[in-house]
Amino acid sequence: MSLVDGPSCEVVLSGAIAKRLQQEIISDQEKLNHSPLLVGFLSNGDPAARMYADWTAKTCANNGFQFQLREVDREELEDRLVEANRDENVDGIIVYYPVFGNRQDQYLQQIVDVSKDVEGLSHTYIFNLYQNIRFLDGEKLQKSVLPCTPLAVIKVLEYLQIYNSILPYGNRLFGHTVTVINRSEVVGRPLAALLANDGATVYSVDITDVQIFSRGEGIRKRRHEVTEAEDMTLESCLPLSDVVISGVPGESFKVPTRHIKSGACCINFSSEKNFPPDIKEKASIYVPAIGKVTIVILLRNLLVSAMHFNPHPKGY
Amino acid sequence: MSLVDGPSCEVVLSGAIAKRLQQEIISDQEKLNHSPLLVGFLSNGDPAARMYADWTAKTCANNGFQFQLREVDREELEDRLVEANRDENVDGIIVYYPVFGNRQDQYLQQIVDVSKDVEGLSHTYIFNLYQNIRFLDGEKLQKSVLPCTPLAVIKVLEYLQIYNSILPYGNRLFGHTVTVINRSEVVGRPLAALLANDGATVYSVDITDVQIFSRGEGIRKRRHEVTEAEDMTLESCLPLSDVVISGVPGESFKVPTRHIKSGACCINFSSEKNFPPDIKEKASIYVPAIGKVTIVILLRNLLVSAMHFNPHPKGY
Repeated sequence: MSLVDGPSCEVVLSGAIAKRLQQEIISDQEKLNHSPLLVGFLSNGDPAARMYADWTAKTCANNGFQFQLREVDREELEDRLVEANRDENVDGIIVYYPVFGNRQDQYLQQIVDVSKDVEGLSHTYIFNLYQNIRFLDGEKLQKSVLPCTPLAVIKVLEYLQIYNSILPYGNRLFGHTVTVINRSEVVGRPLAALLANDGATVYSVDITDVQIFSRGEGIRKRRHEVTEAEDMTLESCLPLSDVVISGVPGESFKVPTRHIKSGACCINFSSEKNFPPDIKEKASIYVPAIGKVTIVILLRNLLVSAMHFNPHPKGY
Repeated sequence: MSLVDGPSCEVVLSGAIAKRLQQEIISDQEKLNHSPLLVGFLSNGDPAARMYADWTAKTCANNGFQFQLREVDREELEDRLVEANRDENVDGIIVYYPVFGNRQDQYLQQIVDVSKDVEGLSHTYIFNLYQNIRFLDGEKLQKSVLPCTPLAVIKVLEYLQIYNSILPYGNRLFGHTVTVINRSEVVGRPLAALLANDGATVYSVDITDVQIFSRGEGIRKRRHEVTEAEDMTLESCLPLSDVVISGVPGESFKVPTRHIKSGACCINFSSEKNFPPDIKEKASIYVPAIGKVTIVILLRNLLVSAMHFNPHPKGY
């Protein structure tokens, strides 16, 4: 036995993936006769939210989009959102959550008009996501907006050719087994649903249990269904999975490398490093972060909304 | 539970795959200043061999290659091969086996000169295949010729995007588990070796046992190694495999669909149908035959040899 080549893992950085998506956006942008305006509302002192806002501003500037950051007291936010909904110069609205950090935030999400909801948090969009309804219209011209981070993960998987374009659109993950660690309403659960709707068998793992999201044997069902995997744990899901996606906040959590299938594709969407360094000894592909892709997806959602809902604002 | 869309299996016919490879050949062919001559030797009354010869003739004609079929008594074959080796107008030689149907056929395979061996049966080529040596020269200009049917399967897997071009050349099957049913010296064993050399874990199944061909955890080894899988059977390999490749001669053998992993990619290289019709209820991709690809590979091998060994034959 000779160890000649060292680890054979391909580390793919989100910058490269973002770049290709940016090119797609630029070509779409040329079809629109104005530079879309994104308005961001910041109502908390969270430094992470401010960083995300600064990053949004920078990416907008670099890609020919307009961005305005509006810092408002959280008690005023509702009225200011209604105002922005009515302003035809505003193409998209983003709110930096948490605002109240409780159920009131879900109420605020529904204030943003569907036509300007570039985060895909409106009930219409969320309903379509879980129901596997991909378009807003019967003619299938207008795509239903998907939340940025889950869609970013999908775009990463497309870039990595885990999505197989030989298969028909909507079934391109058929044959893949994916573990998603995190089942938050914002990322983990919608992501598991999206992957299962595209044909994968998904183990959705959180601290309390494991659920299976799947369209059944031969992906015969129109949309995914969820079953409890009573006797499964993270450790028993990992050896079965050719894709492992983790987004656990906090420094202490690490995916146990020894349980990962040799040659798995591993993607981290947490701001912390969920995979330990020895992941490179085991994985075929490792994506350490996806932040740059997420922000490009935000711009893509903005463009998609502007093209459909606001192609010729009167203010111009 | 609603069954809306019916089976979601994509049936891919070898004609479509062959067509794309043909286009690659045509563009290579333009670099050569003569039309390569393939000589086929037929020394048996086997109707399958004659059919293959007729098919070769037709494909050569359609693609601008020259083909001559020489029917010779098997006792004369050795001398006629030596003659063809010396004839600079001959770019490639194919012998329709079986001739004697015993060890003497292996002797005849070594008579064909390496420079004209378009079937990749010379010891040099076979050695390179098992040793994972991909070029004949240090500068990596001249590819080592691979036997037609195993290479055809590889080209099918590339077409199906099972080979992931995000990964470096030589590691593009890393993460895949493949079952190959048939371990003949002509197809099954070299195929298992090629797949494992490209990073796959391969269960090589024949009637007597199961062997694992693999470059080890993290594909650290330079070439595959073979271990006996003492307690494994076809039935226990199938649920672990995302690709199942079968080439068992005879009508009676059928791969047991119920053991195949949902969403597996299934490829048949037998002239019989090794997969039963219900495979379409289970597989994501099913390739029922690869014959048309094999014959294009033969022409590709002919072209590769002609370009390297005989670019300017004096007879022209």
